[in-house]
Amino acid sequence: MQRFYSVIPAGGVGSRLWPLSRAEAPKFLLDLTGSGNSLLRSTWTRLAPLAGPERIMVVTGRAHRAAVEEQLPELSDANIVLETEPKDSSAAIGLAAAILERREPGVIIGSFAADHVIRGTRLFQRAVQEAVRAADEGLIATIGIEPTEPSIGFGYIRTGEPLPIAGTADVQRVVSFTEKPDRDTARAYLDSGEYLWNAGMFVARASVLLEEMAKTEPELVEGLIALAEVWDDAQRRGPLVDRIWPRLHKIAIDYSVAEPAAAQGRMAVVSGQFEWDDVGDFASVAKLLTRGRSSDLAILGKGARVLADEASGIVVSQTRKLVSLVRVRDIVVVDTPDVLLVTTAEHAQQVKNVVETIKQSGQTAML
Amino acid sequence: MQRFYSVIPAGGVGSRLWPLSRAEAPKFLLDLTGSGNSLLRSTWTRLAPLAGPERIMVVTGRAHRAAVEEQLPELSDANIVLETEPKDSSAAIGLAAAILERREPGVIIGSFAADHVIRGTRLFQRAVQEAVRAADEGLIATIGIEPTEPSIGFGYIRTGEPLPIAGTADVQRVVSFTEKPDRDTARAYLDSGEYLWNAGMFVARASVLLEEMAKTEPELVEGLIALAEVWDDAQRRGPLVDRIWPRLHKIAIDYSVAEPAAAQGRMAVVSGQFEWDDVGDFASVAKLLTRGRSSDLAILGKGARVLADEASGIVVSQTRKLVSLVRVRDIVVVDTPDVLLVTTAEHAQQVKNVVETIKQSGQTAML
Repeated sequence: MQRFYSVIPAGGVGSRLWPLSRAEAPKFLLDLTGSGNSLLRSTWTRLAPLAGPERIMVVTGRAHRAAVEEQLPELSDANIVLETEPKDSSAAIGLAAAILERREPGVIIGSFAADHVIRGTRLFQRAVQEAVRAADEGLIATIGIEPTEPSIGFGYIRTGEPLPIAGTADVQRVVSFTEKPDRDTARAYLDSGEYLWNAGMFVARASVLLEEMAKTEPELVEGLIALAEVWDDAQRRGPLVDRIWPRLHKIAIDYSVAEPAAAQGRMAVVSGQFEWDDVGDFASVAKLLTRGRSSDLAILGKGARVLADEASGIVVSQTRKLVSLVRVRDIVVVDTPDVLLVTTAEHAQQVKNVVETIKQSGQTAML
Repeated sequence: MQRFYSVIPAGGVGSRLWPLSRAEAPKFLLDLTGSGNSLLRSTWTRLAPLAGPERIMVVTGRAHRAAVEEQLPELSDANIVLETEPKDSSAAIGLAAAILERREPGVIIGSFAADHVIRGTRLFQRAVQEAVRAADEGLIATIGIEPTEPSIGFGYIRTGEPLPIAGTADVQRVVSFTEKPDRDTARAYLDSGEYLWNAGMFVARASVLLEEMAKTEPELVEGLIALAEVWDDAQRRGPLVDRIWPRLHKIAIDYSVAEPAAAQGRMAVVSGQFEWDDVGDFASVAKLLTRGRSSDLAILGKGARVLADEASGIVVSQTRKLVSLVRVRDIVVVDTPDVLLVTTAEHAQQVKNVVETIKQSGQTAML
């Protein structure tokens, strides 16, 4: 693991978690588990033992620099990569890969979202170790999650032949990635035993990742490598960032690397046995907090005061206000100082439409 | 109508309207129609033309004196009767009757709740005029409301033979009063055409009202008459109030007067054609504001900001907070500076249980 480096792309507001998530308080800075730690901090804590806290790089927006540094006081200046504007995951992870490959040729990187929830840290770390072994063989490894239910909220990975790699127990070739399925398809996937949830984790030699990306996005990779060349020279970096970054192609790494690499048999998947959730909406947060007991009421927020009479769902409170619920089922109530949201678990996904409506109305102070 | 005097008993918090209604802001001080006027002020405005604004007496608690005077600047000191503690409607209306009878023997009084909503002021005033004629015949008259639906939220009046009274078109004898019925009974009442809603309005000679009350509550009436004797003498009033008032029997006028008088054939009912509602809970408020269109969302509160995506029910806002509703049906959201209530129209009646729970927990600042 000495050659391993973690990369945390910390971007994305998480608009289905509005009004808790905001431009100024994106999902990765929130505590969605009631642990007292932000999702970013928990991600850091999970990754630090793998190769040491000095081997973690964070890629985030300039606006979040202060908040990220407050969450991660151990993070060195050299390991925080600031984007002038969001350019999606290919640019973010690709830039980290290019910088690290230049600093340390042969480095193996693992990219892990800043805003997912994992329970079972040991199992997670063991899966990363297996992925690193697969990466060492020149493969791009992902960690897939054993599905526990026919979720329609996640993407799926179709698994193929087992790959006999020394020191690994459960690595398979990836046949293909599939988008979020409908309920019947998800049920069939679950029953077949051939599918894993796609948790968006990628482990590979930095050079391999960049080579694969260059096959589909040559100009993007050219720009990233140019940036990496001057990255550690503060004098030269600024002007080049200003010139190159705005013109980079915005594309998710799933499309620039994972899908084409899988089609060529170059993707491996480690089967993760840990609990994982991307907590994409308030229904997921409720489920996480109640550990799936849908008859319970989840409460999130320091000093939240709730008086519930036969209520279930979730209350998120950032105020000291008494929240009284009378016989409401699967309700979602989010009380912030300037916005109150009321919806149901069933419609929690639709919250992003409200964000869209507000964006279009120009009332961006609310976002 | 020169002998007529209106009495407005302004008591009752309206606990099913918590947290909008509070000990300090009882229902009669609220604007539940979005008109900009409190229910008390609207009641005053409706009654003032009957015999002039100087012929209206208000009975209320000491704690509400300032608020009542602010709402009713025309109200003279002589016409505000302050209770040291609530003693229910027999004491409140009976004291007003005793004071007015002493000031003006032969006076006819009409008692009207401070916190009901009426639409159709002319029709209301015409009904009061008919009730006064019936009162002039020595009857105790009530004004019943033609039911428009099989409501289970109101009491009913069973009507009997028509009473031929000069200058009236629609006065009948009252056979009996009945409590809130179940749905089937309410439907049968509606279909029979023999029942009217009991709106709790009573019109009678003050002397007749006191005589009837004395038959069932002789000590209560004795106390009220003793108080009335000294009422207009500030020196003597205070000590007597302190001695007598706390010991008065708490009983609703329905039981001390209306039901026994009806049993003896001494109650008449005028059929009111106006719209009436006692707006007892948030479901009633919603219905009132949307004029019964249950697919609509009612919004109450100055400067309330609501962003609704396929929502119905009611939002009451006392804050400037943006309230965002996403696909919630028949919802009740009441946002006040210190308490947020979320329930549904169906369970709006249960709000009083929350108030009871809080009362028992001793957190009376919330009430």
